[in-house]
Amino acid sequence: MTSLTLFTPAGALARAGNLKRAAKRLAQFGFEVETDTDALARHQRFAGDDATRLAALHRIADAAPSIALATRGGYGMTRLLDQIDWARIARSVEHGTRWVGYSDLTALQNGFIARHKGLSMWAGPLACDDFGRSDAEGGVDEVTRDCFLEAMSGALEAVGFREPTGGFDGLEARGRLWGGNLTVLCSLLGTPHWPKVKGGILFLEDINEHPYRVERQLLQLQQAGVIDAQAAVLLGDFSGAAKSPLDRGYGIKDAVAALRARTKTPVLTGLPFGHIRTKVCLPVGGMVELYVQGREAIVGWQSDPRLAHAGHDHHDHHHH
Amino acid sequence: MTSLTLFTPAGALARAGNLKRAAKRLAQFGFEVETDTDALARHQRFAGDDATRLAALHRIADAAPSIALATRGGYGMTRLLDQIDWARIARSVEHGTRWVGYSDLTALQNGFIARHKGLSMWAGPLACDDFGRSDAEGGVDEVTRDCFLEAMSGALEAVGFREPTGGFDGLEARGRLWGGNLTVLCSLLGTPHWPKVKGGILFLEDINEHPYRVERQLLQLQQAGVIDAQAAVLLGDFSGAAKSPLDRGYGIKDAVAALRARTKTPVLTGLPFGHIRTKVCLPVGGMVELYVQGREAIVGWQSDPRLAHAGHDHHDHHHH
Repeated sequence: MTSLTLFTPAGALARAGNLKRAAKRLAQFGFEVETDTDALARHQRFAGDDATRLAALHRIADAAPSIALATRGGYGMTRLLDQIDWARIARSVEHGTRWVGYSDLTALQNGFIARHKGLSMWAGPLACDDFGRSDAEGGVDEVTRDCFLEAMSGALEAVGFREPTGGFDGLEARGRLWGGNLTVLCSLLGTPHWPKVKGGILFLEDINEHPYRVERQLLQLQQAGVIDAQAAVLLGDFSGAAKSPLDRGYGIKDAVAALRARTKTPVLTGLPFGHIRTKVCLPVGGMVELYVQGREAIVGWQSDPRLAHAGHDHHDHHHH
Repeated sequence: MTSLTLFTPAGALARAGNLKRAAKRLAQFGFEVETDTDALARHQRFAGDDATRLAALHRIADAAPSIALATRGGYGMTRLLDQIDWARIARSVEHGTRWVGYSDLTALQNGFIARHKGLSMWAGPLACDDFGRSDAEGGVDEVTRDCFLEAMSGALEAVGFREPTGGFDGLEARGRLWGGNLTVLCSLLGTPHWPKVKGGILFLEDINEHPYRVERQLLQLQQAGVIDAQAAVLLGDFSGAAKSPLDRGYGIKDAVAALRARTKTPVLTGLPFGHIRTKVCLPVGGMVELYVQGREAIVGWQSDPRLAHAGHDHHDHHHH
């Protein structure tokens, strides 16, 4: 059985119910599920004070389960970055642990690859958000589940999506995949936790951020030289923000246009990733290849070599 | 008469009424008011497209009025930063132009002092927000008005405020004043528009940002080495954010405590500056001295030497 530990590194869980439901579902998927002892801890808005959450990270790293899946994001990861024993985390990854999550986990993932080139973590679901919802709350998205199961088995080696403009036909790019939540990633800029990736493939998403705020951060990355230094940028979902009567037609398309007008780096949209129900898994820190044919975009990588040698079936996962 | 030009460098004005009212009031204060030809321009959510707003900046710099007062903030300044002819702006400042505003103007002010040490702009009111409100909308705050008039005459040489903790009695610090809106300032990090001030006095404010977001940006500045490199940090107003049921008591005081726990730099609160009615004027880029006696804090600077030599009355402005 594949061991899977649930932990809560940032914001506190409001209710235990979704965690229990997630644990039950993950067990039904075939995982040997363990819930970290402090997964339900509370201190202010955090899942325990900084020392508690830091200890949980290190405890899981030492135990090195096959999968370390965060229960939720929120805010709290950046509070820990200066104190994390990154070598200890790296040993777990070398031992085979797949760390999984998104949103606030962007800080952990990118802070990690800032120090450990060649190692990766997984941008993917969060236990409570994606596997903990009751049927009344929407249940489990099948694509998210299947993609997660394939990624965790080591079989997933590509994700595909529809690029809506058709303007990138024939594009081929290869580089280190990095990024995640735009606001969380930008909160690492200028700090020792920023991964100085050149020639990479940068993916970004955000939730509840007005398009002008998304644009301001995209332009910051451009002005900081980050966008121009990438082989490609992949934009996921940027929804949830309330429109303003001041917008007068301005929206996320204009924010993307403002970025495209300032860089030669291909900026693709349509990546099925973000604070949305259907999301793929992506290896943060891994070498990936991007191919576009017509409106079909594929991000591919070499699957786990141990599995490849074992003749395991490999999959790519298409979502439109 | 002192010439004063109103311009709109970022977001479009929703109504002309507040601009007309502001112009009328400023004329009553004794200024020779001119409104830039594109102050009411509109493009999407901006006061004209980027070329229009950039041209307005350069046009005003060339005209070099005594005062260049922005009508409002919003978002749009960072779109222009890469294209501004900073030397042209500097010539106007050397010629005596006082550029005034806050919020999005933080980008102009700090981008400017990133290139021109020894020159300054004014963090202070915005024409429509502070002088354009009808009596039904709150009218004009007398402290804001008086402080603005003294600063613009060159007479203002200090602002005082009540530091609420009493924990900084006897503090003395001297350095270059810089900062402004926290989110806008952080959007300059990592770019060529970031002023690399060491040993400075950094002031910060923000509006409608949840305390966890304020904290995340404060910790970013700390992790980037910015906070530790300052002689002092002065926090203004951080209000307007909706509380969340997830907060469980966490608020702006906890965000400030999280910063204080991570730095030896004195972090004072209570600066009367921000998106609030009563705000002082502060010379961004100027050398200032900070004194604290008991709970009384004073930020002082040398007033305009030309006025000093003319024997002009000097003032300090206290607000509690």
